Amino acid sequence: MNAYQPLSALELLRQLEHRPDALDGLLDACYQRIDAWEPTLGAMTAIAPIARLRAMTQTTGPLRGLPVVVKDIFDTCDLPTSYGSAIYQAHRPTADAAMVTQLRRAGGRVLGKGVTCEFAYMAPTRTRNPLSLDRTAGGSSSGSAAAVAAGYAPFGIGSQTGGSTIRPASYCGIAGYKPTLGLLPTQGMKGFSWSFDTVGLFAAHIPDLTYFARSLTGSVQGGRSRGRSPVIGIPESYPWTQPSDNVERALRQAVEAAKQHGAHMVPIKFPRWMTDLVAAHHMIQSYEAYLTLGPEYDLQQEMLSPMLREFLQKASRVTFADYLAACRQAQLAKFELCKMFSGLDAILTPSAPDEAPSGYSSTGDPAFNRNWTLLGTPCVNVPGLRGDRGGAIGMQIIGLPYEDAQTLQVAAFLEQAIDSLGRRNQPGPD
Amino acid sequence: MNAYQPLSALELLRQLEHRPDALDGLLDACYQRIDAWEPTLGAMTAIAPIARLRAMTQTTGPLRGLPVVVKDIFDTCDLPTSYGSAIYQAHRPTADAAMVTQLRRAGGRVLGKGVTCEFAYMAPTRTRNPLSLDRTAGGSSSGSAAAVAAGYAPFGIGSQTGGSTIRPASYCGIAGYKPTLGLLPTQGMKGFSWSFDTVGLFAAHIPDLTYFARSLTGSVQGGRSRGRSPVIGIPESYPWTQPSDNVERALRQAVEAAKQHGAHMVPIKFPRWMTDLVAAHHMIQSYEAYLTLGPEYDLQQEMLSPMLREFLQKASRVTFADYLAACRQAQLAKFELCKMFSGLDAILTPSAPDEAPSGYSSTGDPAFNRNWTLLGTPCVNVPGLRGDRGGAIGMQIIGLPYEDAQTLQVAAFLEQAIDSLGRRNQPGPD
Repeated sequence: MNAYQPLSALELLRQLEHRPDALDGLLDACYQRIDAWEPTLGAMTAIAPIARLRAMTQTTGPLRGLPVVVKDIFDTCDLPTSYGSAIYQAHRPTADAAMVTQLRRAGGRVLGKGVTCEFAYMAPTRTRNPLSLDRTAGGSSSGSAAAVAAGYAPFGIGSQTGGSTIRPASYCGIAGYKPTLGLLPTQGMKGFSWSFDTVGLFAAHIPDLTYFARSLTGSVQGGRSRGRSPVIGIPESYPWTQPSDNVERALRQAVEAAKQHGAHMVPIKFPRWMTDLVAAHHMIQSYEAYLTLGPEYDLQQEMLSPMLREFLQKASRVTFADYLAACRQAQLAKFELCKMFSGLDAILTPSAPDEAPSGYSSTGDPAFNRNWTLLGTPCVNVPGLRGDRGGAIGMQIIGLPYEDAQTLQVAAFLEQAIDSLGRRNQPGPD
Repeated sequence: MNAYQPLSALELLRQLEHRPDALDGLLDACYQRIDAWEPTLGAMTAIAPIARLRAMTQTTGPLRGLPVVVKDIFDTCDLPTSYGSAIYQAHRPTADAAMVTQLRRAGGRVLGKGVTCEFAYMAPTRTRNPLSLDRTAGGSSSGSAAAVAAGYAPFGIGSQTGGSTIRPASYCGIAGYKPTLGLLPTQGMKGFSWSFDTVGLFAAHIPDLTYFARSLTGSVQGGRSRGRSPVIGIPESYPWTQPSDNVERALRQAVEAAKQHGAHMVPIKFPRWMTDLVAAHHMIQSYEAYLTLGPEYDLQQEMLSPMLREFLQKASRVTFADYLAACRQAQLAKFELCKMFSGLDAILTPSAPDEAPSGYSSTGDPAFNRNWTLLGTPCVNVPGLRGDRGGAIGMQIIGLPYEDAQTLQVAAFLEQAIDSLGRRNQPGPD
């Protein structure tokens, strides 16, 4: 039996369409996956009793009662919420986060809470990667990503301040989506850096993910395609960590697949300010985290991990003048962003510099994600490619703010292109 | 004895400079004001025991132990926090809001919690206006504004999503400041509309307010003047409620005073999109409030005021498509904003359409504030003028985002100009 077995939500919904009474069976199957794999994977901090999920008889709303794993930085009134921190071990919020309310309104059921790095920062978690059990699932939304990859639930909710949604999605071989900054609510989510904190979504494939996003907002997000081949920008180089050769090869495969599928691939050069944003992200995140985690740092510092404590110590030295200068840089970059996308439907980069690193001493490198989080752009991780070491390598599709529908369409296009590449490469007809 | 008696923080600090042991006496005086006026004014929801404030021996930090009234939508670990709602009557947060942490780090002491409209919306509060006891103090930061006007404390903290800081400051005849969106932390503050929620500050006069802002951020905010007379834009008309004749007269006085003081006053025309933003603000605020107050609306609707319940009922019908369209409008407006300020140091408008209305059935009209809150600009209420009916009329100085220092400078310039006008108009030499 394989730990990696993502469940396509659209397939489950088709089953429910034909047999509305099949929901209990689907829930049973999810709990069986948890029973089988949770001792190995360590993806969950709390699991709702199956009786509770069965007892929620409401199956209206587009999510039709399907289960969802929610990252443990979102408050839930019916499950413990500890933000990955020893300080909040016994914490039980009185109210749901707004995101959880939105989920319930759409007919989703909270199956349990997914492991998060401490306060969604970078201290490693125990969660294993379902695709490669000796590797990290990424972070900080480790649990939600691993749970979706392992088929505990068809949907997961995470968050991203640096690369906490796109990176674990890439490592776990599933679809991940960071919407335009502010489109999904962060109220009732433990904050880290208010200029960047964004809700993230996980599902098996891009169409599942698009359905999830549309269900939550009750919208035409990700609606009809514009009926023409996408124009996709390919950066010639990156102002941050370079991708591994392994990832470079995967990127070439993706580009080749997209071209064969009819996309126009346009080489682009990042403007100078993209380089400056790397430092600006660090400055803003540091200044803001020292405030949002201020109560914990000032009063219970000994309960923080050494990694976070050290980060906050350094963060305390960022001056307001430096913060203000970085905010101004970010604002100017947002003004310039349209130009960078001029003539393009989306930009394509790898989602991470390599496959998931081995072991659990790090959750990996968010270098390919941070600037986009700062810029507030929609980003989608497209799964489907594998690297030399057998791990997943995700491709990141990036669009302009508020162009989420189009960004998801381009991602769906790329996923299809990569899939058909896979099918062509298979040894014989099936 | 007069209920209106704002305390200049800079004056108190000068006293402390000469006699560091004077702090206990200053605290005593604040509590005497509360004893004398609170039964009439109704500005506070919780007051810290004086012994607790005296026992806080830390007088480092630029605020030197001075007391501060904090709006009761900010979590405090040592005082009850009920967000103005019956639902949270017994609520006692485990941690401080980040803003409260920042305040304590700067050497401020939380004297108590100021009355807020229910969840910082518009249902009227019981708080009376210290300047005119038969009128509202404005809202939603009613208590913090009234407390500062009455001399309970030299500083107050409020918030603004529509006009909840600038309007009560205007009505109560004190200085009020809504910083650039995002410069002060809202984590741990009960949210209403995440695109707009902004922390606000109150003090007696602009120099006190500037000192408060600088102390919180440990910065040169509001630093040295640029040594030339400001260029101030005066809109020819407004795309929202028109000001009363009463306010028009006050505005003419302010313009005249500024000119006599050397300012260049430039007539400006608002671009077309300023009109559209009025509806966009309503759309965005509605969509977001229906989510942030979702847990309360879905589970304890009967505990909400009829006014808020009706607002949320209507808000539930705003579609995601409409929300997205309004977000796009807001984004475009932010891109265009620089052009509107081209050649100007700031824009001047009245802070509200009239003096505080009589009675307590409304907290007044935020029409003059909403667009600026949406645009994220710094706004400062300059006190000093009086209307026909004897109430305060505030002038609003507006700057470009991140130009907070300059905006506060222009506000200080205008306050001085208005003050010398007052002195010239006095019957004889003093």
